[in-house]
Amino acid sequence: MAKDVNPPRGNRDFLPLEKRKREQVLGVIVDTYRAHGFQQIEAPAMEDISRLTSGQGGDNEKLAFRVMKRGEELERSLANVAADGADNLADLGLRYDLTVPLTRYYATNFAKLPKVFKAIQTGPVWRAERPQKGRYRQFVQCDIDIIGESHELAEIELLNASLDALAAIGLTDATIRVNHRALLTANIQALGVAEADAPSAMITIDKLDKLGIQGVTAEMNEKFGAAVAAMTSQWLHNIAVSTDVPEVLANIFDTIEALHPGRLRFDPTLVRGMGYYTGPIFEIEHPESGSSIGGGGRYDGMVGKWLGTDVPAVGISIGFERAVDLIGDDLLGASEGIVLVVDDSPAAVANALKVQAELIASGEENVRLERRPKKLNLLLENLATQGFARFAFVNADVASAAALEVKSIS
Amino acid sequence: MAKDVNPPRGNRDFLPLEKRKREQVLGVIVDTYRAHGFQQIEAPAMEDISRLTSGQGGDNEKLAFRVMKRGEELERSLANVAADGADNLADLGLRYDLTVPLTRYYATNFAKLPKVFKAIQTGPVWRAERPQKGRYRQFVQCDIDIIGESHELAEIELLNASLDALAAIGLTDATIRVNHRALLTANIQALGVAEADAPSAMITIDKLDKLGIQGVTAEMNEKFGAAVAAMTSQWLHNIAVSTDVPEVLANIFDTIEALHPGRLRFDPTLVRGMGYYTGPIFEIEHPESGSSIGGGGRYDGMVGKWLGTDVPAVGISIGFERAVDLIGDDLLGASEGIVLVVDDSPAAVANALKVQAELIASGEENVRLERRPKKLNLLLENLATQGFARFAFVNADVASAAALEVKSIS
Repeated sequence: MAKDVNPPRGNRDFLPLEKRKREQVLGVIVDTYRAHGFQQIEAPAMEDISRLTSGQGGDNEKLAFRVMKRGEELERSLANVAADGADNLADLGLRYDLTVPLTRYYATNFAKLPKVFKAIQTGPVWRAERPQKGRYRQFVQCDIDIIGESHELAEIELLNASLDALAAIGLTDATIRVNHRALLTANIQALGVAEADAPSAMITIDKLDKLGIQGVTAEMNEKFGAAVAAMTSQWLHNIAVSTDVPEVLANIFDTIEALHPGRLRFDPTLVRGMGYYTGPIFEIEHPESGSSIGGGGRYDGMVGKWLGTDVPAVGISIGFERAVDLIGDDLLGASEGIVLVVDDSPAAVANALKVQAELIASGEENVRLERRPKKLNLLLENLATQGFARFAFVNADVASAAALEVKSIS
Repeated sequence: MAKDVNPPRGNRDFLPLEKRKREQVLGVIVDTYRAHGFQQIEAPAMEDISRLTSGQGGDNEKLAFRVMKRGEELERSLANVAADGADNLADLGLRYDLTVPLTRYYATNFAKLPKVFKAIQTGPVWRAERPQKGRYRQFVQCDIDIIGESHELAEIELLNASLDALAAIGLTDATIRVNHRALLTANIQALGVAEADAPSAMITIDKLDKLGIQGVTAEMNEKFGAAVAAMTSQWLHNIAVSTDVPEVLANIFDTIEALHPGRLRFDPTLVRGMGYYTGPIFEIEHPESGSSIGGGGRYDGMVGKWLGTDVPAVGISIGFERAVDLIGDDLLGASEGIVLVVDDSPAAVANALKVQAELIASGEENVRLERRPKKLNLLLENLATQGFARFAFVNADVASAAALEVKSIS
């Protein structure tokens, strides 16, 4: 009897064709970002659990997978578990995003990095979420960040490079909603919400997509009373009529508009959940996706926390998993692999290896050897589903690629 | 004051140039394996801890990082920790190799895979080793495996593809030592060692590189007495004189020799540590490396364990970290990035984005924008160390790449 052989709950295996598509999409995104002068870096998958739960990660901190201490340290912590709690049994955790590790990475390595540091980070992150459709416990994030540049050139570069990357993977219809945290805060205060209540009001306004103006107004009424609710309703209705880009975002909009007409949209109700944003904030949308496919913003206060100085920073993340789902399988070009069907003799095998080497040298990207089976059609049908389009026989007489009779699998 | 900002013990950050080299080397290896008809796949970083500690992983099982249960399950296990032990607090673990996850992956997905499955797996693995020079707690493995092929064509393809991949990354001097587990077992029995003692004898013979013939003979004497020691000494001295390739490996050697003359070497004393090998075994060596830079072998019994049937399998792993260390920084070609030094006006920024887009469209792979600083030389010197070789000024008048005056950074 076969034993239970599933990957752990919420985790995925990738079959060859799906993996190929993911590698192609990621490769195109990274190449586009590199072309724009960004540099790939890598930090470890694990960080100290104290760093992962120091308040920078928002709600995601609760979702960190915790890695147990080992040896004597584990024994000591176990002996004190009643007093210290179970949290003390872990010393490491798996990263739940790429931003918290980036701020640590920058603090560790800033002396060896360019003064304006333009980073590309791609890789898996892990969250102990309750598994559900489209949510996974391991998924890939794809971030660019500019650290050390307070000028809005940083925002312009991020938005320009991201729109280029999205276009390069075929998502030419993607748009980016933009707001500014200072504007949002001023708008909320103008509604009559006390400064201390602003975060709670943001949570409600963030639900506008789901609840509509009426629903948001009702929740503001519950939270802050009728006067605030009336102001909220008026504000949201005014926005629906007119959304002129404000002065503080004008240069960003004008510059991007020249290269990507119609791709930016000012949205004064855009919130972005994380508390660390300090300036412009972004959310990437696509007409075929019900939810955002990425986002980011300026977070000037966060990097300095580990370094002990102020360091401006701005980042944007493409939601890799959602982007991949939007891309058709044929967008990036079908593989044109070739199968060499080899007779079962040492001379035929030797010829096959020689012919394979010649084909690879001539530019073939995928040359597969198969021993000649009893049912050739079954083999070829199977390999057609794996992206192989051609085949040829190799026996003891076929000693070079020139002698090959290549046929298409049909 | 800056806080402690190091990566966790035994873990590494990769700076941009090191990361670039690693990506290039990995890309060349994967492209070579793909050209040989292998397919990339991916399994999750975590597997059930019960699977990771079921005896397939050898000594590495003890080095698995354990991931703590969460919520009520953790509370229940904590309540019973006195009776069940600390091991029961973890439900998941980080993979310590790519082979154990591959056997699980194959059992899960075999119905959707080609009958002969040729897999490429690259990715990080984690081991809770005591950190020391050249040993890391996270490192990259780079494996190919052929599952479902009992014919020696599988061994031939693995060795041929690996030697091609090593050559493609500049390691043309790499050689592969080859032995056969059945031969090794027969040789050990011929020394007078009882079948049950064969694993212990293998551990001693595996130390030949370190101890020499005399040291191995002495340890065999301690373990199995003078008669076995005398036979061992005689065997090892005979080997030093003559190492004819035995019949069972002759086809493999003849076929590879035709394409990679002098790259295979028969070594009847080669052991390879893992207990699961059943046929030919391999170890990759390089004259500039003190230890092996990879290895593998046939492991016909292992995949079937999860599936409940017998499935032949053979794999080989390039030790990515050691291979990268052997490769010069310049082997893969220096980056030829270009820096656009941009005036501080909206018109100059708009021009810079337009020029950047033109340069990228014309094939430039790395076009970086920088605001014009007070000390230009400092900036350019710094960027020269990051692989940028050229620069040009962009102001409000430079509206296209044609108007650019590109200078070399010297």
